[in-house]
This record gives sequence, C-alpha cells and structure tokens, in this order.
Amino acid sequence: MTARRRSGGRAARQRARAAAFAESKPFLTRRLAPYEVLDEEGLATIEQHADRLLAEVGVEIVDFPEALRIFADHGADVDGTRVRFPEGMCRQIVQASAPSRYTQHARNPERSVEIGDPHVVFAPAYGCPFVRDLDGGRRYATIEDFRNFAKLTYMSPALHHAGGTLCEPVDLPVNKRHFDMVHAHLTLSDKPFMGSVTAPERAQDTVDMAKIVFGADFVDRNTVITSLCNANSPLAWDRAMLGSAKVYAENNQATIITPFILAGAMAPVTVAAVATQTLAEALVGMAFTQMVRPGAPVVFGSFASSMSMQTGSPTFGTPEPALMLFVMASLARRLNVPFRSGGALTASKVPDAQAAYESAATLFPTLLAGVNFVLHAAGWLEGGLVMGYEKFVLDADQASMASALLEGVDMSPNGLALDTLLAHRPGEHFLGSEHTLANFETAFWTSALADNSSFEQWQEEGGLDSVQRANQVWKRILSEYEPPPLDDAVREELDEYVTRRKAELPDEHA
Amino acid sequence: MTARRRSGGRAARQRARAAAFAESKPFLTRRLAPYEVLDEEGLATIEQHADRLLAEVGVEIVDFPEALRIFADHGADVDGTRVRFPEGMCRQIVQASAPSRYTQHARNPERSVEIGDPHVVFAPAYGCPFVRDLDGGRRYATIEDFRNFAKLTYMSPALHHAGGTLCEPVDLPVNKRHFDMVHAHLTLSDKPFMGSVTAPERAQDTVDMAKIVFGADFVDRNTVITSLCNANSPLAWDRAMLGSAKVYAENNQATIITPFILAGAMAPVTVAAVATQTLAEALVGMAFTQMVRPGAPVVFGSFASSMSMQTGSPTFGTPEPALMLFVMASLARRLNVPFRSGGALTASKVPDAQAAYESAATLFPTLLAGVNFVLHAAGWLEGGLVMGYEKFVLDADQASMASALLEGVDMSPNGLALDTLLAHRPGEHFLGSEHTLANFETAFWTSALADNSSFEQWQEEGGLDSVQRANQVWKRILSEYEPPPLDDAVREELDEYVTRRKAELPDEHA
Repeated sequence: MTARRRSGGRAARQRARAAAFAESKPFLTRRLAPYEVLDEEGLATIEQHADRLLAEVGVEIVDFPEALRIFADHGADVDGTRVRFPEGMCRQIVQASAPSRYTQHARNPERSVEIGDPHVVFAPAYGCPFVRDLDGGRRYATIEDFRNFAKLTYMSPALHHAGGTLCEPVDLPVNKRHFDMVHAHLTLSDKPFMGSVTAPERAQDTVDMAKIVFGADFVDRNTVITSLCNANSPLAWDRAMLGSAKVYAENNQATIITPFILAGAMAPVTVAAVATQTLAEALVGMAFTQMVRPGAPVVFGSFASSMSMQTGSPTFGTPEPALMLFVMASLARRLNVPFRSGGALTASKVPDAQAAYESAATLFPTLLAGVNFVLHAAGWLEGGLVMGYEKFVLDADQASMASALLEGVDMSPNGLALDTLLAHRPGEHFLGSEHTLANFETAFWTSALADNSSFEQWQEEGGLDSVQRANQVWKRILSEYEPPPLDDAVREELDEYVTRRKAELPDEHA
Repeated sequence: MTARRRSGGRAARQRARAAAFAESKPFLTRRLAPYEVLDEEGLATIEQHADRLLAEVGVEIVDFPEALRIFADHGADVDGTRVRFPEGMCRQIVQASAPSRYTQHARNPERSVEIGDPHVVFAPAYGCPFVRDLDGGRRYATIEDFRNFAKLTYMSPALHHAGGTLCEPVDLPVNKRHFDMVHAHLTLSDKPFMGSVTAPERAQDTVDMAKIVFGADFVDRNTVITSLCNANSPLAWDRAMLGSAKVYAENNQATIITPFILAGAMAPVTVAAVATQTLAEALVGMAFTQMVRPGAPVVFGSFASSMSMQTGSPTFGTPEPALMLFVMASLARRLNVPFRSGGALTASKVPDAQAAYESAATLFPTLLAGVNFVLHAAGWLEGGLVMGYEKFVLDADQASMASALLEGVDMSPNGLALDTLLAHRPGEHFLGSEHTLANFETAFWTSALADNSSFEQWQEEGGLDSVQRANQVWKRILSEYEPPPLDDAVREELDEYVTRRKAELPDEHA
C-alpha cells in the first residue's frame, strides 16, 4: 500500500519487490490436481478405523462439563468424562453442515481470503516463545518482536494471512497478552488474522475487538477470525481449546481443529495409524463446532511429525510426515472441508542448510497435497520454539513460488509456442525471439533473496550467504513499513477496550 | 564393506551410519505412483508438436558425416547437415527396440543397478570444473579431488551409482583425463560408473578399460557403462556426443540422451515448449542409438531450468523446472524408456539456506515425478560449476530419505495398528507401547547430519551449523575409506593400459 510507494525509484530488486506487493494475490488458486498416495480402499479403511476408535475408545473431555452435555444431547454416549460416538456420527454431523469453503474477511476487503478448495492461503509461524536474529542470537520473544513480525507479515506478498501468535510476548502477563496481540493484528496489518484460544473468555475478547473494527452486525453475519484449536492428543480435548472453539462457533467464526501428533509419542509410529487417530480427534472437534452452531466454518487441521527414535526429539522435513500430510489432505477432501497442515518446519537451531532442506521438504508436500491453509509458512526454527527473523524472510520468499507452481502447465497456444519452435533454425537461440520478449516479465518465478549471479559478481558484492542477505532484507522491510489506514475513532475505541479490560483483570504470570 | 568394520564401537551416530552402509540397497524400488501434471490430451499434444518439429525443422548434425549416412539409411530426409524425420519415425524406432529397463552391472555384483521403472538410482554431481570446501574455499578441481569424490560416493549408502566426471581434473591434459577418471572409478569403487563422452575414441578407451575389469566376453553380453550424451540445444547434435553414443551403443553399453536446456536461451520460455523441444532432441539421439544397435540400452534425459530474466543467469529450484520435470517424466513413461533428470541443483555459491532450499525444491519433484536415474544428486553448487565437499555429504544425506518416501504408506495390519489404537486409553502415550517398541528401529528415516537435539545440548556440543558438521563428516568418511578388493592382475593390466595409451598421445591442454 503506502509502503509500496516509498520504494519506487530504488534498485531493481526493490522495485521488483514493490511490484510483487502491488500485484500480490489475496490468496492462491490451485490448478494442479492434488497428489494422492492412497487409493479409495486405503482411505476408506482409515475412515472405518477412525470410526471404530471413536466408538470403542472415544475421547476424554477435560474440565468442560458443558461440552459433555452438548455431546450427549447430540447422541454421543457419555460415561463420566469419556465420550464415545456411534460409528459415523461425527462424520455425518460434519458433512451435514460444515461448509466446504468460507470467506475470511479482512478489514481491507482486497485482502479477504477464501479458505477451502481450490484455494491456498499462507500464514506465518505460530506460538514461538523465542525469537532469533543474526545480530542478537536467540532470546525470549517480546511484544516488540510480535509487532515486528506483524509488520513483516503485512509487508510479505506471499503471506496472505496475518497469522495469530506470531511469537509469545512473554514480557506481558499471560492473561493479557491476547489484548496486545489482537490489537497489533487489527492495527498494524489489514490482512485476515487469528484469535486467542488460551481460554474461552479470551476468545470472546477477540470477537469483541473484531466487532469494534468490523462492526458488530458484520461480524454476526460474516467470518472475520480463524483460530487454532489443538486437541490434547491422544484422544483428549480440554476446556481452553474446545471452550474457545465454542465461543468462535457461536459467533460464526472459524476454527482450525488440529490434532498435534508426534508419532511414537501421541500416536503409534506408523503413517496409517497417525492418520486414523488424527481423523478421529479432528472429527470430534469439528463435529462439536457443528453441534454448537451448524454451518460454522471449520477447518480440518493436522500437525503430525516424526521423532528421533534415539533421543525422542521431534524431527521435521522427513518422509513419514510428508506421507501423513498427503493422506490427511485426501481424508479432508473426502469430508469436503478445508484442510490445514504443513508449512516450513525444521528442528534446526539456525537458518542453515538443515533448516532449508527440512523446510522445503515440508513445503513441497504441502503444496502438492492440496493444503488450503498453510500455517507456519514462514519463520519456524527449532521445532517451533523459535521465530527467526532471517528464516522468516527466507521462507516467505520460498512461499512466493507457490503461485507459479500451482498454476500448472500453460497449454494455451502461447504456452505451447508451436509457431515459435517451428520458426527457429537449429542452433538459433531464443533470447531475442518475439515470443521470449512477449513473455519476458512473467515467464519465471524469481526469488527476491536468491543470488543467481556469477561467482565473481557475488564475491564483489561481499560474498554474502543467504542469511546475511536475509538480515539486510528484514531490516529494510521494517524500515519501509507504514501502517495501513485505520479510522481514528475505531482506533480509539479499540485502545479503550484494551485499557478497560486489562484494568478489570489481575496480572497473571506464567 | 571393510570400512564399515572400522567404525564399529564408536558413537551411536557413526554406528547408525555404518549400519546404513551395510543395509544399503543397491537401488530403490518405487511403490508410490508418479505424480502427473498433464492429462492424456496434453501429453499427446506435446508429442505431436515434437513430431512436427522434427519433420519441419529437423536437427543439425555437426561434423559427423557417418551419422548423416546412418540417419539417411533409416529413412530420414538428409539435406546437407540438416536431418528431418517423417512424423513418428524416431518414436517408432525407439519403441521398437529400446529396452524399458536394463541392468547396469557393477564389478561388485551386489551393487549392480536396475535402471528403469519402477526403480530409482542416485548418482553424484557431474562435470564441475571447481571444488569448494569450508577450509579452502573455491578452487580448480584436481585428480586428487576427483579421487576424493569417488571415495565419498563409494562410502555413501544413498548413492547407488559412482557417476562419471565427478569434477574436472584440470591438472591433467584434457585428452588424457578420462584415463585417470575411469581408472579411479574402476579401482576406488565397486559401484556402477559412467564413461567418457568428450570424443568417440575416449568412449572406446572406457569400453576397453571396462573389458579388462569385467572381461571382454562379459562386456559384449552385458551393460557395464552408462554415459551421458548431451544435445547441443537447440536442435543440434555434434560428433563428440553422438560419436560417443555410437561407440557405446555398438558395444551394447548405455547412454543417457540429454537435451540441456535453459529456457529462454536454448528453447522458448514456456514449460510446454521446453518439453516439446526436449522430446524432439532426445528422440533423435535415442533413435540414433537404436539405428546403431537395436536394443542398446538408452535413457531419456532431460536437464531443463529457468533463468533470471534480469541477468540471464540460470536459476534452479524454481517452480517452472519442477513442472518441466513432471511433464518430461510422463513423456518418458509413454515412450517406455528409463528417464533421467533432477538432482540437488542450486545456483548458490555456498552450501547455505539458498543451496538447500533450491536443492530440495529440485529433489522433491525428482522423487515424485518418477525419475529413474538421478544424476547430480549430491555436491552441486553454483549451477554445476562447483562440486562442494560439504554440499556433497549434506545432499547424500537428503537423498537417503528417498527410500522411505518411495515405499509409500504401509497399509499392512502392522502399519494400520488398529489393535494398538484400540488398546490405548485417551491420554495414554505410545512411547512404551509394544507396537512402538516392535517398530522402533525402522519407524522413521533419520538424517545422519541433521541436529534434532535441544538448543542447550546443541550449544553445549559447539553450536555447529550444518555445514560445520558436514565438514567433519566428509573428513571422517575419507579417513575411514578402504578400497574395495580388486584382483592384482586386473589392477596391473589396467595400469598398463593407461600407461601405454597415455604414451601414445601428445598432451593437450584446454
């Protein structure tokens, strides 16, 4: 927006970046068919097993009697805090009313996103207690870091969604952080955002703050928040997450229902078993939202990874989670609900080759599986403990290639270029050909961060590696940041809400 | 082999590595279906366009009258040095006799490889004039470097094939390098290898040297060499490459017929046009081998990448080459010949995050497209100008994950683990479960180079990034190297051949 204007007239790379920002799509549309790793029989088997798991073992509902009543009212078998479901019940409830796709409105209508097939939306990493940059190394995150990442996300054309807990502002009281985070999302950015899920009352604060910005009527009729509700795998749901899901569903706001599974710990070690359990847990959460309010937007989420069997540490970018991702995406398509998974995940402590290999080995399956909402698309380090400044801009750059990949192969006459091929002699190069000149600017995705120059030129320019270049880039982006416009009265009302609500609560520290 | 024994009793990571070497498969077998990005109609259109290109424009045959005669004898229309082909002629010739799969024998029969569906073979980078390591930086490659990479390849379980010109030994005369390179492959390793293609007489030297090791009779009846013959894109073939292909085909040895295309320079900028031209050029080379000797093994090769439209520099790991790769693999399957492409390609000067992102963004499509022979799977830097020591071991580690990925999803009762799922209570973890213990060791692919430990432990161990760890690893591997056994008489005969042939030729320098 305004930031774009400021970079006019600078170096070519900066102009390209600004142009990308201007032309950036609010979300992507996939033309490539998703990759399927299992056939109909295999997928049906996993569905049957998930149904048996829900019927025979069921789930524990922790500290949330109201949810037990809701489940019982809808035909589940409630025994103390254990809830079992007749086979197929959850699936039927989800399929009866959950939308296959929904619009999450942004306060800038041009940035509203469609969540669900055939669309793809990228959001940054979520939930990191630490941050890292090349200058200061690793340290606890603060609200200042949070605001920096809100700005960086706003300025990143490949990130369509502002995300949620970009990093944990541990300098703020644990029960009041959400005010500052939601406030940052609503003021520093105009992209769609995620709300608090750490307690139902914080979810309600999120909805109330959104109403100030979007208008109460608009929020009642439209979805303006998508929030992340994780299961307590294996097979448990607690009040914080399910209670938050209830608040959002009641308000017609979206939730991403995500079993978080490290295979071998929260589930058996095999791909098919992880898929079975993920489906079972997600079905319960998704069905719950539909019991609360039929038709409330809900996303099937899956976060599944492997672990080092030597040390028990989680591992990322490995082949088994890639297979899990493909299977889960297929299962979500069969349920006909939007799917969230993937990202740019890594266990590496620093944005080195390991980090990039692992992130790419997560991102590529994410793109080909047909994920609709890609959380953790930028910034993740150290298994999610760290949000990295350099990693963020490197990942966002990689995410920007999705647009070209998902377009698929252009089979138009211009794409086939038969006349051009037939008009050239053997040995005659195509650099100056009319077809090349006509397609010059849009022919190839070009990374804004990769160095493709000659060794000599690279050396002359300082011989910087990609992290050193990324360090310059995020600082430049932050220096160029200007907030999107926001009505003064709205801003004041938002500030007042935060001040008032903070005063009502005692400070709680973790 | 013997090297394995030496690492017994050391640290766990080294034991794991040794075990991997012992259990390493000579080649991989794919269970995952390849990913298709075009439908039947799209692929047929590209085939028709390739046929028209060969009929209307044809190819130039540079400095090789004998090839012109061979093409004319088989029904092509030869006009000076231009050869045009009746529509479908090349395809029919290839389909009539080219094998869909062949065995390339290694001098250790346990390392022989199957090249063609459903198998996958990995080989290291090829043709780099420079090398780089963390200690010495970038420098011209020598025969010592070549031997080091021959040893590293031999010691890398994920690399099934020794490759060919691992780096250019520029310290040797240009017309005699091939003796030392082939000698190194035949003595330092017992994996299958690639021969010289820089002149037909050097191809013949390669065959003659192989006969010393394998026996002349064996070589007459079996394929023991697979060599890389590149087209002079656009639409030209020269005597060096096509003449070498002729020598190999006459001897029933395999060639990889590879158009090398930077889109926008050697072909139009679009994916479909690159596919059309690649198919046309490859059909000519493949058909030529079948004219020389019907049934000679031949591999359809494709090397296609994008370029920076700002600078003209080649770019790698971008979405367009990924799409090209998927299309070419589909076209090769329709021809029913083995397919070579992909690898771990990058334009980065150093093994940083850029190098890893780009390599992974090439490797993942390589695996899902159904490539049978993966050249450049380890070591590539700087668009192929540099073979990197650290990059080599990092890439080889990544390549090792292919085995688990290509296995696909285990849908056996053990894979489904239904009994285990039904036997666990909600909240009960699986770390100690019988199923986990039974599957513990094989459950997950684990990188030998990634650091998955906690931040504190990583820091305590020196806080090394992946390149620093890789530097330690390649030095350790080289220090542990022991050559595979070779009969003394064979070794002597090989040495004598090289000495005699070198004496017959004057030194030529580039």
